[in-house]
Amino acid sequence: MKQQNHIPHSTVTVDLGDRTYDIKIGEGLLEALGDHLLPILPRPRVVIITDENVGPIYLPTVTRVLKASGVTVDSITLPAGEASKSITHYESLMDQLILLGTERKDTLIALGGGVIGDLTGFAAATLRRGINFIQIPTSLLAQVDSSVGGKTGINSKHGKNLIGAFYQPLAVIIDLSVLDTLPKRELQAGYAEVVKYGAIDNKEFFVWLETNGIRVINGNRQAQKYVIETSCRAKARIVSEDELEHGKRALLNFGHTFGHALEAEFGYDGRLLHGEGVAIGMVMALSISAKLGMTKDTDAKRLRQHLKDVGMMTNAHSLSSRHNLNLSAEKLFSHMAQDKKVSDGKMVFILGPLGAVCTRNDVNPKIIIETLEQSIHADD
Amino acid sequence: MKQQNHIPHSTVTVDLGDRTYDIKIGEGLLEALGDHLLPILPRPRVVIITDENVGPIYLPTVTRVLKASGVTVDSITLPAGEASKSITHYESLMDQLILLGTERKDTLIALGGGVIGDLTGFAAATLRRGINFIQIPTSLLAQVDSSVGGKTGINSKHGKNLIGAFYQPLAVIIDLSVLDTLPKRELQAGYAEVVKYGAIDNKEFFVWLETNGIRVINGNRQAQKYVIETSCRAKARIVSEDELEHGKRALLNFGHTFGHALEAEFGYDGRLLHGEGVAIGMVMALSISAKLGMTKDTDAKRLRQHLKDVGMMTNAHSLSSRHNLNLSAEKLFSHMAQDKKVSDGKMVFILGPLGAVCTRNDVNPKIIIETLEQSIHADD
Repeated sequence: MKQQNHIPHSTVTVDLGDRTYDIKIGEGLLEALGDHLLPILPRPRVVIITDENVGPIYLPTVTRVLKASGVTVDSITLPAGEASKSITHYESLMDQLILLGTERKDTLIALGGGVIGDLTGFAAATLRRGINFIQIPTSLLAQVDSSVGGKTGINSKHGKNLIGAFYQPLAVIIDLSVLDTLPKRELQAGYAEVVKYGAIDNKEFFVWLETNGIRVINGNRQAQKYVIETSCRAKARIVSEDELEHGKRALLNFGHTFGHALEAEFGYDGRLLHGEGVAIGMVMALSISAKLGMTKDTDAKRLRQHLKDVGMMTNAHSLSSRHNLNLSAEKLFSHMAQDKKVSDGKMVFILGPLGAVCTRNDVNPKIIIETLEQSIHADD
Repeated sequence: MKQQNHIPHSTVTVDLGDRTYDIKIGEGLLEALGDHLLPILPRPRVVIITDENVGPIYLPTVTRVLKASGVTVDSITLPAGEASKSITHYESLMDQLILLGTERKDTLIALGGGVIGDLTGFAAATLRRGINFIQIPTSLLAQVDSSVGGKTGINSKHGKNLIGAFYQPLAVIIDLSVLDTLPKRELQAGYAEVVKYGAIDNKEFFVWLETNGIRVINGNRQAQKYVIETSCRAKARIVSEDELEHGKRALLNFGHTFGHALEAEFGYDGRLLHGEGVAIGMVMALSISAKLGMTKDTDAKRLRQHLKDVGMMTNAHSLSSRHNLNLSAEKLFSHMAQDKKVSDGKMVFILGPLGAVCTRNDVNPKIIIETLEQSIHADD
């Protein structure tokens, strides 16, 4: 093992019967990749899928380390950004994988953020009816959320992730060192998903974040490791209980229905990061929860304060000011009605007090629209 | 139940843990569809996917019967033929399903042959990360083979079924009555897959077919039910043992590597039916088995004789004569090298004596090419 002078790595197991896998979290794991992957690869051949932002920084290292371990390595570099999750890019990726002679026993490696992870996972789920893949998430968002749990997918022109599969990776390798090259704004956006784990069912963690969360943004390695490990443990537990999202897993969508509506309004063009939408959405969810008498007004205020403390936007008004875009509550509401979380024709919301949310499908649309209006016209 | 004057229906269970499902086999099941489906639909809403050949004959009945049972029914009719398994048609199908508001609790129904079943299954596997689907196979081939076992997929421009998923249906409903409207040539082609079950591990069944198989082609209902039930039981047993084709399930590809190469050469344009390619491929597989000393020459002769008795082509020569196309052993061989069954760079063949085949990956390419040449130049 080459992890000298590094904090020791941790392992979180996602317990899913014969699809059980480990998440390794530590510093310098990319340099020790061979040690972690060789025991689990069905055969020593991989195709790494990365993008034009991440590839130039980490692809040479990953390729060198794996080749040194006797692994045959091919790689495919895609354009960065959500547009790579189109069906056109998916088809092109599948063509490239087929032309590389990728077989059932080969393994795909997703080296990148959420877009690369979702697309690579879906390619693995559907190439020759399924081959193995490994997640090496390089953004905080992917590390604490999208790389864990087997949600894979691409976008339809009618909505995000409407085409996809539940398909679990063979392993998730989280190297904390990669956060050093992540733009601060992306670190903040990923942090929103960390806050989510506190908000949904771990008040104690939320309280810890109120005091210590800023250290994650400021690059403190111990704090980063603690929040990533806590987030992965929370996600692993929920996914183990409800892999296919028939029940409890839906709680992980806290704030997301609102966030997705904002993303849809921005056309997924990169101006609004997923985590930025989620942050604003979580505040709205707590506002609605207070209006429904599920919790006190102070919860939304407290969440908003913490998100502001780490430098994030907390309402749609800040967003429309920053990007000089008029937002309409009605349009946002119609995006929400298109969301995957609609069930039996009813919109499902994740609501409740901070640290103890649940699902509700009986919310009066007027309250939703009123809350969207307030977020659009908020002045703080 | 409305099945008056019909032979009683049988149930074959595909035992796959929490993905276990039943195959119902009988006469007049379409007219009793509500009784069979209502207890298993997550909610009473379905989208039927069919093609321009099958739709006009059976869609009105299926729609009427389901509506009478209180089920909300939408339908999508696609062009008939293998071309509907392109990624372009898949994308269009997904768009239509999304615009119909198809949700996770809705159920797709594949009403058609293998193409409709494969495409619908893949759409179900990948719409909103997976919704339920039911197979109502209307060709003998789909009834005895493609509708059972959860292989779903579409074609890449580089090969057949290279994009797909293992995804099990909620039920398979086989109505024998639909065989009355099936063209004789399609009945014969489907029959090749029936013969396959005898050839791979049930010599007794093969012997029964030698005497009685012609009754299946001639429309005898009891004989049809017996061979379909025997085939489904064989497939259910193999799939239960090896759902993801890590081992034994590969035996079901007996004759298929050769058949796929012939299909590829014809460009999947409908001139060569899948079962016709399999019939010729099975004869080649037994010829190679004899050359390798795995069985006697008489096995290939016996299989060829039976296929001729039911009116099928048994060599590539008949095929090239019928379609006025020159076939090249080298070109066919190169198609085979592209097949999904390649593993560790080696071609896998299913070989052995009639009724007891196994996998081999050590066959000298010279023997393959020689056998292809013989099939291309055969004069019987």
